[in-house]
Amino acid sequence: MRVLSFGAVVPLLAATALSAVSAVPALGEEGMWTMDHLPLSQLRDKYHFEPSAAWIERVTRASARLALGCSASFVSADGLVMTNHHCANECLSELSGPGRNYMADGYRAAGQASEPKCPAMELDQLYAITDVTDRMNDATKGHEGADYNHAQHAAESAIEHECIGGDATTWRCDVVSLYHGGRYALYRYKRYQDVRLVFAPDQQIAFFGGDPDNFNFPRYDLDVTFLRAYENGRPAATPDFLPFDVNGPKAGELVFTSGNPGSTSRETPVASLRFLHDVVLPLTLSRLSALDGLLWEYSRQGGEQARQAEEVWFGVQNGLKVYRGWMQTLADPAVLAGKAKAEAELKDWIDADPARQKQFGDPWAQIDRAIETQRKLFTRFTYIEGTRSPAGFDSDLFGYARMLVRAASQSGKPDAERLPAFRDARLPALKAALGSSAPVHPQFDATTLAFSLTGLRQALTADDPFVHEVLGKQSPDEVAHALVSGSKLGDPAVRMALYKGGSAAIEASTDPMIVLARRIDPEALALRKQYEDQVVAPLAKASEAIARARFAKDGANSYPDATFTQRLSYGTVKGWNENGREIAPFTDFAGLYARATGSEPFRLPKVWLDAKPRLDLKTKFDFATTNDIIGGNSGSPVLDRDGHAVGLIFDGNIHSLGGDFLYDPELNRAVAVDTTALYTAVKDVYGLPALAEELRAGKLPASK
Amino acid sequence: MRVLSFGAVVPLLAATALSAVSAVPALGEEGMWTMDHLPLSQLRDKYHFEPSAAWIERVTRASARLALGCSASFVSADGLVMTNHHCANECLSELSGPGRNYMADGYRAAGQASEPKCPAMELDQLYAITDVTDRMNDATKGHEGADYNHAQHAAESAIEHECIGGDATTWRCDVVSLYHGGRYALYRYKRYQDVRLVFAPDQQIAFFGGDPDNFNFPRYDLDVTFLRAYENGRPAATPDFLPFDVNGPKAGELVFTSGNPGSTSRETPVASLRFLHDVVLPLTLSRLSALDGLLWEYSRQGGEQARQAEEVWFGVQNGLKVYRGWMQTLADPAVLAGKAKAEAELKDWIDADPARQKQFGDPWAQIDRAIETQRKLFTRFTYIEGTRSPAGFDSDLFGYARMLVRAASQSGKPDAERLPAFRDARLPALKAALGSSAPVHPQFDATTLAFSLTGLRQALTADDPFVHEVLGKQSPDEVAHALVSGSKLGDPAVRMALYKGGSAAIEASTDPMIVLARRIDPEALALRKQYEDQVVAPLAKASEAIARARFAKDGANSYPDATFTQRLSYGTVKGWNENGREIAPFTDFAGLYARATGSEPFRLPKVWLDAKPRLDLKTKFDFATTNDIIGGNSGSPVLDRDGHAVGLIFDGNIHSLGGDFLYDPELNRAVAVDTTALYTAVKDVYGLPALAEELRAGKLPASK
Repeated sequence: MRVLSFGAVVPLLAATALSAVSAVPALGEEGMWTMDHLPLSQLRDKYHFEPSAAWIERVTRASARLALGCSASFVSADGLVMTNHHCANECLSELSGPGRNYMADGYRAAGQASEPKCPAMELDQLYAITDVTDRMNDATKGHEGADYNHAQHAAESAIEHECIGGDATTWRCDVVSLYHGGRYALYRYKRYQDVRLVFAPDQQIAFFGGDPDNFNFPRYDLDVTFLRAYENGRPAATPDFLPFDVNGPKAGELVFTSGNPGSTSRETPVASLRFLHDVVLPLTLSRLSALDGLLWEYSRQGGEQARQAEEVWFGVQNGLKVYRGWMQTLADPAVLAGKAKAEAELKDWIDADPARQKQFGDPWAQIDRAIETQRKLFTRFTYIEGTRSPAGFDSDLFGYARMLVRAASQSGKPDAERLPAFRDARLPALKAALGSSAPVHPQFDATTLAFSLTGLRQALTADDPFVHEVLGKQSPDEVAHALVSGSKLGDPAVRMALYKGGSAAIEASTDPMIVLARRIDPEALALRKQYEDQVVAPLAKASEAIARARFAKDGANSYPDATFTQRLSYGTVKGWNENGREIAPFTDFAGLYARATGSEPFRLPKVWLDAKPRLDLKTKFDFATTNDIIGGNSGSPVLDRDGHAVGLIFDGNIHSLGGDFLYDPELNRAVAVDTTALYTAVKDVYGLPALAEELRAGKLPASK
Repeated sequence: MRVLSFGAVVPLLAATALSAVSAVPALGEEGMWTMDHLPLSQLRDKYHFEPSAAWIERVTRASARLALGCSASFVSADGLVMTNHHCANECLSELSGPGRNYMADGYRAAGQASEPKCPAMELDQLYAITDVTDRMNDATKGHEGADYNHAQHAAESAIEHECIGGDATTWRCDVVSLYHGGRYALYRYKRYQDVRLVFAPDQQIAFFGGDPDNFNFPRYDLDVTFLRAYENGRPAATPDFLPFDVNGPKAGELVFTSGNPGSTSRETPVASLRFLHDVVLPLTLSRLSALDGLLWEYSRQGGEQARQAEEVWFGVQNGLKVYRGWMQTLADPAVLAGKAKAEAELKDWIDADPARQKQFGDPWAQIDRAIETQRKLFTRFTYIEGTRSPAGFDSDLFGYARMLVRAASQSGKPDAERLPAFRDARLPALKAALGSSAPVHPQFDATTLAFSLTGLRQALTADDPFVHEVLGKQSPDEVAHALVSGSKLGDPAVRMALYKGGSAAIEASTDPMIVLARRIDPEALALRKQYEDQVVAPLAKASEAIARARFAKDGANSYPDATFTQRLSYGTVKGWNENGREIAPFTDFAGLYARATGSEPFRLPKVWLDAKPRLDLKTKFDFATTNDIIGGNSGSPVLDRDGHAVGLIFDGNIHSLGGDFLYDPELNRAVAVDTTALYTAVKDVYGLPALAEELRAGKLPASK
């Protein structure tokens, strides 16, 4: 199951995966294509299909992105949104409480009027793509290190500011680096911040087979949640949607996925991949494994504990499978050898001509130097700052505290000099996060915090002055308990008051979590600056040089590495050959009932056991395709050449885990729920005629 | 802190670390020398010291080995044994119970008459070393694969049988492969199976600084336990002992350690080291990290849970530090490159001469083939069989069940065809293990079993027939609960009855753990045979060929890789330079009190706080030396040129973790407790004049 992954690895990769367009033309059905640069000739030649401009625009606007890291699509004219159950985990978990566990039991709105609002969900709909390469290049020309970062941030900030046009509530604008510096594009999104819950099935069927079946196929999951976008308190009008084909696709049929693959590293320099394999992944796997054991034991202590841990644990287990897959791929000597050979050829090409040497320099030497620094800084950076969150402070309350402390200190700076998350264009998302009504569970928060503080001390050693500063003469458990029990930041009203109070309120606060975040922020920010200036920026510059050299040598007719922006992939519904055994592309309801054991995670919910006599057991359930997808594509629609929804991506097979580094057309498969199964489940298992009718007709029955 | 490590890695290494004598003369103070092949000329040249034959014999017999994986020494003529607190963990934990926690609080026998017996401890004292190289070589000559293994086992069994001379209660005999096939030696030990507890300090001082300080220096630990060997119910007479020097060593002084380093991989083929780095260590670190998180959370549930988990958790945390150190060393490109270069030179030397080609063949090609097979079998082997215990069945009760099932099936075979642990020579240890009075904690056993069964399913997938066989239609938790609550194997009387009942009793048993072990044993044993025949044996043969080629090319004047047999190392009391900062070789009591915070793991026990006014704070506490040691050396005495005990090895510094693969004279340091501190603690902190007097005088005061 693919989500934009847990913890620091993917964002770190985003920082180190500085890639250039592939020198080799995309093979088979490889490729995650931007909507303004689709592989039209391949589609024409191989499938005699040419999408019209209207097809492209409708598919673009019918696709959506969940800001937290998934894909989605509109499937009715009245704002009905289809995504995965696991993409709505946070909403389901946050709306749950004593006596109601939506995450486990799902949720069925009695009607449109009773759709509850997801506390912290934002949905972005792509409106326009504009090339801003020249403007960005002009801005960074001649800059190095910290200067380079600063010039880049300033240009991004200015472009995004103009694009939003003063209405950050309606629009979101992101400058996206594609082909790593090969091209920059401005993505303008319409934001929906009022997103409500329509339908979620029971977790037991959404994630049937649980962690054991995750990334496996044949598969039997109904991994869906239907949401609805609202505007001004009413269902949003979404005329660009994907009509729902209740018959699903056929074997061998041409299908597309439209979604937001999060990150790939297909053109990442070999030295960065080695660093990933030797340093980043061992540390990350170690941390996630420890959390896995902790959460396993925590969850066994009772239903309430299990519910508190569920969402985080899901991410941990998913991450473990992904990163273990990466380790395996990167340990295959052939993979790195192939990439090293391509790099050596490019370097030879540069070195063969003094003019090229002058133009491109020796980017690999720069990369080696940057990675030497990265090696020294990495552990400290990971534990104290992290790309997303610091590994040493695994606590929701600490996360809020740091957000508030930084919001106060950053707001005094010019927009261009702020950290990205605190620029004007991002403030609505920040406010939404701070105002979230999601509960913080003190026992759980103190547990993860105490464990991560233990990890901090272990990683930096007990003699480290920073560790002394944090722990003083107390144990991690004592510190965590005092911080969590003393903090009022679990209350959104308290957080919003501190946010509105700005620097004065933060300086005056005696909330122990604020006090801690305030005290350690200078060191954390200094570390971030050092990491960005000495690692991220030189890697970016070097990879940009490599990208340009590749363009110069081979020309450019490929797709950029994934960047969590909208991409179209094409492929066919198709199984594969697993060590001599043919895997069929479809599963059906009969297979589901045969696999059910009565024990978790293979236990069926009662509603499914009761429905069995009413169902045609030959109904198709899940299917595999050759589409090239990656984490972030979760919730992507599968559509046919008519632009009709025929499936819902929710996973890849085990071979797809290598897809971060290369696409293998023989083995790599995307895994989707068939729209037939979705429609049948809504209509005949859950008995929801109105929702079934909206899917079939593409509009709310009430609005007929 | 060094123990012979947790889980499967070290034994696996023992299987893969097939090494040859170093081609490079040992540098600096490098070397773990066998007692019959000491570096006499180096000692003479560098230190003007030549040990006499009597010195060597006394040191040999005054040293001892704990069968479970540590070193020790006799320090009085009345059987008094000095080892580490952490080496006696199992005894301390097993003797504990509701109301008495010897592991945490230590134990002070009121007098010799009140020394309780450790339930399952065996102490072996080395008596004689005999070369049996020719006999072993003759036996295996011309054999391959399974035949090779069989011939080797048969010869070993015959030699050991003769050596024991029918008295397996008194003697233990092991054929030891040194320089991997370069030489075979017969080690004859006197066994002590009645070992009693004399003195253990509080855990808080034995392991002051806990996991954070483990493998750190400066250090402040009193990591000691005194035991006593008994014969016929009375203190054993041990005329060969190390007189205790209550003044400890001086900086720069020549010192020796005599102990049993468990395993090193300094001459392991590069391909096996890569496999270790890419496959074995990631899997092991992942498993141990998960257990670490689980046990952390389990232990927080209450004092009783903490006590149940303590011993296992200790091993897990220690293993994590060690294996993380290995990962770091092996990820250093220079380490493997240096080794690869040496291998390439040897290969060139062989290939330069057709006669050599004929004699030595291409062992590296054989190694590559064996590792290809190992890659395929490794996960399955690890989870179902394992070198020591199966990763998929982490349960004391299952361990007993498998032992009993195998004892029954193996006893029907000729001695030479049995698995090593079931040969006549090893039966006393087997019986002692089965008869152990150590309690099994059902909640803890069911927890680790359920978690490991979850890991089994995850590793082999839910579709694997073996997993189906074990879990049926139940969850890991359900299966573990049913097995543990239904089994009577926690009772030593039940185990002994089943053991004595032999095959008939095992076949008739309905104990669910026996039923499970019986059902899966055919597959587990088949897997073991396949692994030994297709991986272990070809690696052994190939490494033997490499060893012989090295001997032929360079001659032999070095030490063999460690094999958990007695070795002497020499060195000096010395600190090191850590990134420009000088680390002094000694710590003192003043430093201990300065480091104490009042919070775990830096909290001092009350008896130490109370004693502070009585103590000379300049008393030396721990010290560092350049001696070359490794896991298994824990509990080794440090002795001076007079053969007096001046310290007690309990750890190495962080740089010593790379010592498995190479010795770095600049940075690698052993860490020991000063005998001054030991004597002062016994006398002035714990107020035990009789024990202090026995240490000083070398005999029981009562026997004056």
